[in-house]
Amino acid sequence: MAKVTFIGLGNMGSPMASNLLKAGHELTVFDLSASAVETLVAQGAKTAADVNAAAQGAACVITMLPAGQHVEAVYLGEQGLLQSLPEGTLVIDCSTTAPETARKVAEAAAALRLRFLDAPVSGGVGGATAGTLTFICGGEAEVFEAAEPVLKGMGAKLFHAGPHGAGQVAKICNNMMLAILMTGTCEALALGVKNGLDPAVLSEIIKQSSGGNWALNVYNPWPGVMDGVPASRDYQGGFLVDLMAKDLGLAMDNANRNHAPVPMGSLARNLYEVHAHQGHGKLDFSSIQKLFVD
Amino acid sequence: MAKVTFIGLGNMGSPMASNLLKAGHELTVFDLSASAVETLVAQGAKTAADVNAAAQGAACVITMLPAGQHVEAVYLGEQGLLQSLPEGTLVIDCSTTAPETARKVAEAAAALRLRFLDAPVSGGVGGATAGTLTFICGGEAEVFEAAEPVLKGMGAKLFHAGPHGAGQVAKICNNMMLAILMTGTCEALALGVKNGLDPAVLSEIIKQSSGGNWALNVYNPWPGVMDGVPASRDYQGGFLVDLMAKDLGLAMDNANRNHAPVPMGSLARNLYEVHAHQGHGKLDFSSIQKLFVD
Amino acid sequence: MAKVTFIGLGNMGSPMASNLLKAGHELTVFDLSASAVETLVAQGAKTAADVNAAAQGAACVITMLPAGQHVEAVYLGEQGLLQSLPEGTLVIDCSTTAPETARKVAEAAAALRLRFLDAPVSGGVGGATAGTLTFICGGEAEVFEAAEPVLKGMGAKLFHAGPHGAGQVAKICNNMMLAILMTGTCEALALGVKNGLDPAVLSEIIKQSSGGNWALNVYNPWPGVMDGVPASRDYQGGFLVDLMAKDLGLAMDNANRNHAPVPMGSLARNLYEVHAHQGHGKLDFSSIQKLFVD
Amino acid sequence: MAKVTFIGLGNMGSPMASNLLKAGHELTVFDLSASAVETLVAQGAKTAADVNAAAQGAACVITMLPAGQHVEAVYLGEQGLLQSLPEGTLVIDCSTTAPETARKVAEAAAALRLRFLDAPVSGGVGGATAGTLTFICGGEAEVFEAAEPVLKGMGAKLFHAGPHGAGQVAKICNNMMLAILMTGTCEALALGVKNGLDPAVLSEIIKQSSGGNWALNVYNPWPGVMDGVPASRDYQGGFLVDLMAKDLGLAMDNANRNHAPVPMGSLARNLYEVHAHQGHGKLDFSSIQKLFVD
Repeated sequence: MAKVTFIGLGNMGSPMASNLLKAGHELTVFDLSASAVETLVAQGAKTAADVNAAAQGAACVITMLPAGQHVEAVYLGEQGLLQSLPEGTLVIDCSTTAPETARKVAEAAAALRLRFLDAPVSGGVGGATAGTLTFICGGEAEVFEAAEPVLKGMGAKLFHAGPHGAGQVAKICNNMMLAILMTGTCEALALGVKNGLDPAVLSEIIKQSSGGNWALNVYNPWPGVMDGVPASRDYQGGFLVDLMAKDLGLAMDNANRNHAPVPMGSLARNLYEVHAHQGHGKLDFSSIQKLFVD
Repeated sequence: MAKVTFIGLGNMGSPMASNLLKAGHELTVFDLSASAVETLVAQGAKTAADVNAAAQGAACVITMLPAGQHVEAVYLGEQGLLQSLPEGTLVIDCSTTAPETARKVAEAAAALRLRFLDAPVSGGVGGATAGTLTFICGGEAEVFEAAEPVLKGMGAKLFHAGPHGAGQVAKICNNMMLAILMTGTCEALALGVKNGLDPAVLSEIIKQSSGGNWALNVYNPWPGVMDGVPASRDYQGGFLVDLMAKDLGLAMDNANRNHAPVPMGSLARNLYEVHAHQGHGKLDFSSIQKLFVD
Repeated sequence: MAKVTFIGLGNMGSPMASNLLKAGHELTVFDLSASAVETLVAQGAKTAADVNAAAQGAACVITMLPAGQHVEAVYLGEQGLLQSLPEGTLVIDCSTTAPETARKVAEAAAALRLRFLDAPVSGGVGGATAGTLTFICGGEAEVFEAAEPVLKGMGAKLFHAGPHGAGQVAKICNNMMLAILMTGTCEALALGVKNGLDPAVLSEIIKQSSGGNWALNVYNPWPGVMDGVPASRDYQGGFLVDLMAKDLGLAMDNANRNHAPVPMGSLARNLYEVHAHQGHGKLDFSSIQKLFVD
Repeated sequence: MAKVTFIGLGNMGSPMASNLLKAGHELTVFDLSASAVETLVAQGAKTAADVNAAAQGAACVITMLPAGQHVEAVYLGEQGLLQSLPEGTLVIDCSTTAPETARKVAEAAAALRLRFLDAPVSGGVGGATAGTLTFICGGEAEVFEAAEPVLKGMGAKLFHAGPHGAGQVAKICNNMMLAILMTGTCEALALGVKNGLDPAVLSEIIKQSSGGNWALNVYNPWPGVMDGVPASRDYQGGFLVDLMAKDLGLAMDNANRNHAPVPMGSLARNLYEVHAHQGHGKLDFSSIQKLFVD
């Protein structure tokens, strides 16, 4: 087992770090929140006074931060983390950022002979806690292989999407697709119910037919159809509307730079922004169902 | 095995009738196309001079017609088929129509003590040929059960969606969802490819993640990613753009009557109409991919 | 001045009838609401026991009814109004209906040698009261000319859009365009305000530039920018969201029948339905502004 | 008349510079294209070896460049133009850029006590040639006033939208609105024509009714309805689809940063990108009409 440093102990990072401990890694953590650090220390992690100190001696450094600006702030610059790491260190950023951010950090890492991987995750807090996250990685194949043992401590599926930034691109495409199918599922169910159909029966039919999709399989948005999903607890918990809006913002930004037409994704993005404007930013993203019922 | 009459031997109806013969039913067929009738007669079916004669003596009558207007023309009116059938006959319409059409025929059937079921199918010509269609049925539970032995000769999955018209409603909702996820999948793949990703790798990642859906599972729209699908044979065959546009028209009409918001479905409908206007009406519906690539 | 019968004394019909009286026409009115009838009688109109009696002896019959179903109910059928009118009577329907309804009534009228015109209006209750409505007419040119003297008593602009039904088609196209430009104006203003611009300054700039449109000219949707418009009185009065949704329903139905792509109109329709679902159906249609602000 | 330096002699810049000469200004020009420079020199302008030399001694410097990156390259940096100008120089950027670019240049200018204005234009090559451009300005009121005499040599309308960047914001909002109303007008006309209406008659009706807008007033997109517009010369010339797509990209980027819902603008943006993908990038933007006809 490797010496690993984990930076960023938010809703996702904390359970991910916890699982690394359970997997037997020697773990040092850092976060600006003292209580988040304490919780991990109580589980057996070490800590340090700052990011650079926390990374001292690590064979692998992992970051899980809110957005690209935080990733750049931690890694780059004269006092940045990359500068303080010895050649060959494995550096894995699990944050969701623009592909450009990943490529920028990767370039700086390459100049210092560090081995960088962009490795955003899919699966939410539930997956982070259960250790069943999906990691979607961009970088060199040998670095992806080198990262596997550590990533497997936190996740169930590992994908190598392509070169640097490809992990972020694939994540963006997936989450845009997710927003599209969730919004579509919500309006299809609402249309059926307006016609008098039972949402559970209709869900089952579409799930097993050509309209089948992930939302109907495991994350039904209609209250009461499926146990244990946010829709059945007033859309509390889960993957927040604000975070979906953030990810759709990355998708729109990417489509914009590439002159790519994404009409369905754009419409989903706008509906999520309307939904957030109406005060639902802290609900689970399946609450977009509310737009389609009285 | 029952005495069955099958009316409407088009691309879907012919293989469906054929499978009823294979299942051992005593079959009489009717269609305006003499060659379509001949093919079935060569396989062992009987035929007759007109619809009403063909239905004489049948325990079960099945129709598979292009649109609601044909269904009304065959069943209703003073010379209509319903009038000529003895009480208790099982009458199954497998055409895709507006729910209102199904309810109208059902009402006329009930007045004559016939047992009617709306039973539109999902699965396309491939499913019709393989006998693996999905039947989505609306009507009374006991009529649904009575129809099962016959429907199983043509399909693999049978759903009881609810009362009369519910089969059509569920079919409409499913196909609207299908149009949404197909269009969304096409634009997500195109966005990834614009970023340099391999469409097969990206498809695999999304398929196994939260963007997973039927198109990625069995009907990938990107040429060359999946064998045996329309995308890999220049979008020939399959489920035509014109037919998807027809089904989306039924969905829009239904949403309109019910004042239901269906923004994603409406956008998909409009993109399919643009696509059809540009001369692609006779391609498979996964050819909507073309809208998103140069 | 002609003997005119006016049927349908709602929010629009009452002031229209009132203006006919002021113009010096000999007027008989009918409505199911006794109080609406009384108001007009107090102004000098006659009334009668039913529609057919009210139309007796009229040179011109005008209807202003909520929807196509009412128009068909009044005019068609064995007891219908058309049957009771003498040859040559001028029959003008000012209701907004599907073009198919107009063509159906026109055909029945032609068979009875009546002179029919579909003549939906634009201008709202304000225009009806001020006598400044726009009439958009479909029918034969000579019937249009014959109707001019009567229509001028109620409106300022008369258009001959084409043959029977063309008045309804042009009305539908105009109102779809209106929904598009109103929604677009609302989101453009909201975007500017999010950037710190003054909505009045921004409105003035766009109004005088290439984004100029009717809403910015006379019906600004941002509260406080323009005096005397619904936006400056909490969106009370004006043209109700529910009525815009009805007209957009006619547009969608027409686009559906004609396989016409109308992506912007469809999106506007869906946003209006969402807005209505959220309890704003009785506000003025410029209240769609609310969708774009916190 | 002032000593003015004009940098950027493209399709817009050349006629703008030409009009400054006609207005009597002492003009020095610079562009990388020797032939563009020569044309202006032949009209009486001076030139110089590089940007900084061209600006020497100018009371007012004007730039008209393709995009924000060129603006930053010319003005900023150690060798940038701002560094070479004496305090108090009036600096006007007429390029269309992100508001952030304008604010960044404005900040650098303020630090050097220069007087900066962002002043993007509306009116196209036609307006630039005729000297009837609209200038939409952001910056301090006194700088706006100081710029008036020079801007009036090139345009007919001057607007002060607000502080630095506000000119760009208002331009973005206007052009988004323009894309929305042009696309909407195209689909409304196509819908009417599908119903058999005459596009000229329908245009006239909507223009004078509540659907009235700039496109119907002066830039009708249906071929043959209006003389002298791009639609009547196969959509040649005018404001290119690629440029509209660029401006919509700025609008989307701005909406993204501000979490502003812009569903209609986003849809227009995506339809323009589809249209450009289909090979129409070099046609006038009113050619979006083609998406809606067979």
